[in-house]
Amino acid sequence: MARMSKPSCLITTPSSLGLHFPNPTEKTGAIPAAAGSTMSAPPELPSMSNDVLLIFFFTEPNDEWISRVKAKHPGLEIRWVNILNPDHTFKKPESLGDEVWKGVTLLCPFIQPPPAELLSTVRFVQLPSAGVDRWPGHPTYENEKVVFCSGNGAHAPQIAEWVIASWLSHQHHFTRYAEQMKTGQWEPPTRSTVQDSTAARMGVLGYGAIGRQCARVAHAMGMEVYAYTRSEKATPEKRLDDSYCVPGTGDPDGLVPSKWFHGASKDAINNFLAQDLDIVVLSLPLTKETKGLLSHEQFEILSKKKTFVCNIARGGHLDQTALIQALESGKIRGAALDVTDPEPLPSDHALWKAPNLLITPHVSWQTQSLMPRILDILELNLDRLGAGQPLINVVNRQLHY
Amino acid sequence: MARMSKPSCLITTPSSLGLHFPNPTEKTGAIPAAAGSTMSAPPELPSMSNDVLLIFFFTEPNDEWISRVKAKHPGLEIRWVNILNPDHTFKKPESLGDEVWKGVTLLCPFIQPPPAELLSTVRFVQLPSAGVDRWPGHPTYENEKVVFCSGNGAHAPQIAEWVIASWLSHQHHFTRYAEQMKTGQWEPPTRSTVQDSTAARMGVLGYGAIGRQCARVAHAMGMEVYAYTRSEKATPEKRLDDSYCVPGTGDPDGLVPSKWFHGASKDAINNFLAQDLDIVVLSLPLTKETKGLLSHEQFEILSKKKTFVCNIARGGHLDQTALIQALESGKIRGAALDVTDPEPLPSDHALWKAPNLLITPHVSWQTQSLMPRILDILELNLDRLGAGQPLINVVNRQLHY
Repeated sequence: MARMSKPSCLITTPSSLGLHFPNPTEKTGAIPAAAGSTMSAPPELPSMSNDVLLIFFFTEPNDEWISRVKAKHPGLEIRWVNILNPDHTFKKPESLGDEVWKGVTLLCPFIQPPPAELLSTVRFVQLPSAGVDRWPGHPTYENEKVVFCSGNGAHAPQIAEWVIASWLSHQHHFTRYAEQMKTGQWEPPTRSTVQDSTAARMGVLGYGAIGRQCARVAHAMGMEVYAYTRSEKATPEKRLDDSYCVPGTGDPDGLVPSKWFHGASKDAINNFLAQDLDIVVLSLPLTKETKGLLSHEQFEILSKKKTFVCNIARGGHLDQTALIQALESGKIRGAALDVTDPEPLPSDHALWKAPNLLITPHVSWQTQSLMPRILDILELNLDRLGAGQPLINVVNRQLHY
Repeated sequence: MARMSKPSCLITTPSSLGLHFPNPTEKTGAIPAAAGSTMSAPPELPSMSNDVLLIFFFTEPNDEWISRVKAKHPGLEIRWVNILNPDHTFKKPESLGDEVWKGVTLLCPFIQPPPAELLSTVRFVQLPSAGVDRWPGHPTYENEKVVFCSGNGAHAPQIAEWVIASWLSHQHHFTRYAEQMKTGQWEPPTRSTVQDSTAARMGVLGYGAIGRQCARVAHAMGMEVYAYTRSEKATPEKRLDDSYCVPGTGDPDGLVPSKWFHGASKDAINNFLAQDLDIVVLSLPLTKETKGLLSHEQFEILSKKKTFVCNIARGGHLDQTALIQALESGKIRGAALDVTDPEPLPSDHALWKAPNLLITPHVSWQTQSLMPRILDILELNLDRLGAGQPLINVVNRQLHY
C-alpha cells in the first residue's frame, strides 16, 4: 500500500486545488480500510467499473469535473442531483426517486443523512461537512465496513477569516463606529482603548484544520498561539495534521503554537483557559466530553484576562445562560458565535440582547470556494479508492471526527 | 561610520521591543547626517551631556524609560510633559512655559508642530507619526541641519489589523448580520455570496511599513499580493525596508509580493489598478503627486473586479464625490476609510449615507502599544546619536517621508 511522504502543500489535481498530506496514519494511528478487499488489494487491481456515485448538492452538475473523473475511472457511473428548490428549500433525499438511488455505492450527500434503506449498497460516504454530528446512530454510520470521509479542511480558510474578523472588529470597535456613522458625528475623542494583536495570546481549543488556519493568521499578526488537543502531541510527528489543506494556508506541520496542552478532563480544559488568553477559539467537535464545555466556572477563569470567546464549532459547547451573565457582568470582553443552541435562536432569546456579542446564523463555513474544495477531496478519494490507497479525511468512528 | 548588517528582527533594547534594520541607506540612497560633526565623529567622542530632550505626550512620564535612558547618557536632561487636559483637549506647545522650552536640543512632540521660535536650539526631532504632513513649510523642518525621524513602523500592526478587519467584515457581511441581530431573526437563507480570501488578490499602493504588514496577514490568509512603490524595486536588495519593525510582523525583506509595480505617473497607477485587484490598500504618503489619486477614471478601472478600496493614508488621496458615485452605482463592492477630507466630516456630508462603506474617525493608528514603540524608536535613535551611528526612520526632505 502506498504511503505518502511529507511534502508541503501539493497541487495534485487538474482542478488546481491541492492538499497537504503529510502522514495518513497520524490522527488515528491507522486509516480504516475501505469496504472489504478493495483497500488492501494492490493498486492495479481495484476498479470502480461497477460503482455508482451519487452526489447531491445545491448546484447544477459540474460537467468538467464529471468528465474528468469519468475519464480516470472508466465504467464509474456518476449521478448529480441539484437538491435546491426555487424557494431556497432543499429536496429531501427520499424524494429523489428509485432511479436516483438504485445501486449507489459511493455517496456525497449535502447535509442531512438519507434514510438507511436507501443506502444498502453504499460502501463509501464523502461528507461535505467537517463534523459528522448528524450521523452517529444512523445504521449506515454504525456499519464500520462503510468508510466515511469528512470535508475537513475545506472550511478552514473562511472560518478562520470569520474568527479573525470577529476578533479584530471587536478590538477595533467597528460596531461602535458603525453606530456613530448613522448619526453623522463621532463621539468625543478619548485616549486609545485599542489593544492590537502583537502582544496578545490566542488559545485554540481543538487544533484541527480550522484552528490551524486561525493560528496561521494570528501568528502573522504577531500573536502568540497556544494549542489544545484531546490527545497529547509531544513530538513533531504527532503535531502533523493529515487532513486536507488549501495550499498556502494552515499549519499542517504544527509549527505555530509556542505551547501545547492536551487532555479530555475538565481540569485539563480549565488549566488551558487559565493561560491568560486574550482570545479563545472553540474549534473542536461536539462530543459527550465537550458538551457544555464553557459554563460559569470557566467564564470565572476567563475573567482574569477578560478573554474574548469565539465559537465556530457547535452551540452545545457553551452554556448560553452563563455566557450572557459573563457578558453582562463584563467578566469577558466580548464574544462571537456563529453557532447557537438552538438554531435559529428564538426571537425572544436573551442572547440577542447581550452586550459585546456578535451572532451570525451558522454561516462561517460559506464561501464560493467550498464546492470546488469538496469536489477536490472527493476526486482525490475516488482516485485513492480506485488505486487501493489510503483515503484522506477518514472519520474515526470512536471520536466521530 | 558603523553599518548594520542584515539581521531579521532584532531585540535591541531592554524594553523588549525590537526593530528590523536591514540596510540604513536603502530608502533614500544615503541617510542624512545629524547636525554638524556629531554624526561623522567616531563613536567614542560624541556625548549628549549638553543636550536637553523634551517629550510631550498624552501620558504621565515613564519613569523606567527615563531612568534607563539617563543611565546610558550621563548629563542628558529629559523633560516629559503630559499635554492632556482633564477635558481631553491638549495643551498648546507655546503654553508650556519658558522653563520647559529653554535649551531644548532634542524634541519628541505629540502631533502639532510647535512654533519655530521655541525650536531655535533643536537639532533632532523624533516625530511620533508615520508621516510629516503638518511640518513642510515650518522653518525648523526647512532647516536641513535639523534631523527629523518619523515613527514609521510603530503604526503598522494596528493599521494592518484595521485594514484586514474592514476587508473581512465586508466580505463576510458582518454589518448586515449585526443589523439582523437587532430584529431577533435572520433573513431567509440564501446561497453563499461569500468570497473568501484564498483566491483573492490584494494590491498595496505604497509598500512601506504599513503596507508590508497588510501583505503579511493577507498572505497568511492565502491571498496574492501585488506591491506598488514610487521608485523601482528591481532587485532583492531594493525590496528591503529599513524602517522600524515590530518583531514577528511586516515583510522587511520584501518577500511577500508576487509582482512589483512602480512609478509616479497616472498611467503607472492606472496600470496597477487594472491588475484585477479584489482589494486595494492606500498606504502611501500624501504628496502633490498622490493627491486625488483615485477619481472617476480610476473607479471605472476598478469596476472590472469591483475592487474593495481601503484608505488608511490621508483623505486627500480620494475624490470623495467619485467614491460616492462608485459605491452608489455598485462599481466597487465597498470601501473603508479611516481618513476623510475634511476631518471630522461635516454631519451633512453625503459620504455618511454611501452604501457598503465603513468610516472611522482617523483612529486606525491607535493601540496601547504605540507609546512604548515610539519610546523604543526614540531610545534607539538617542543611542545612535550618542554613538555617532546612522539613525533609523530618517525623513527624506525631498519625499517628505
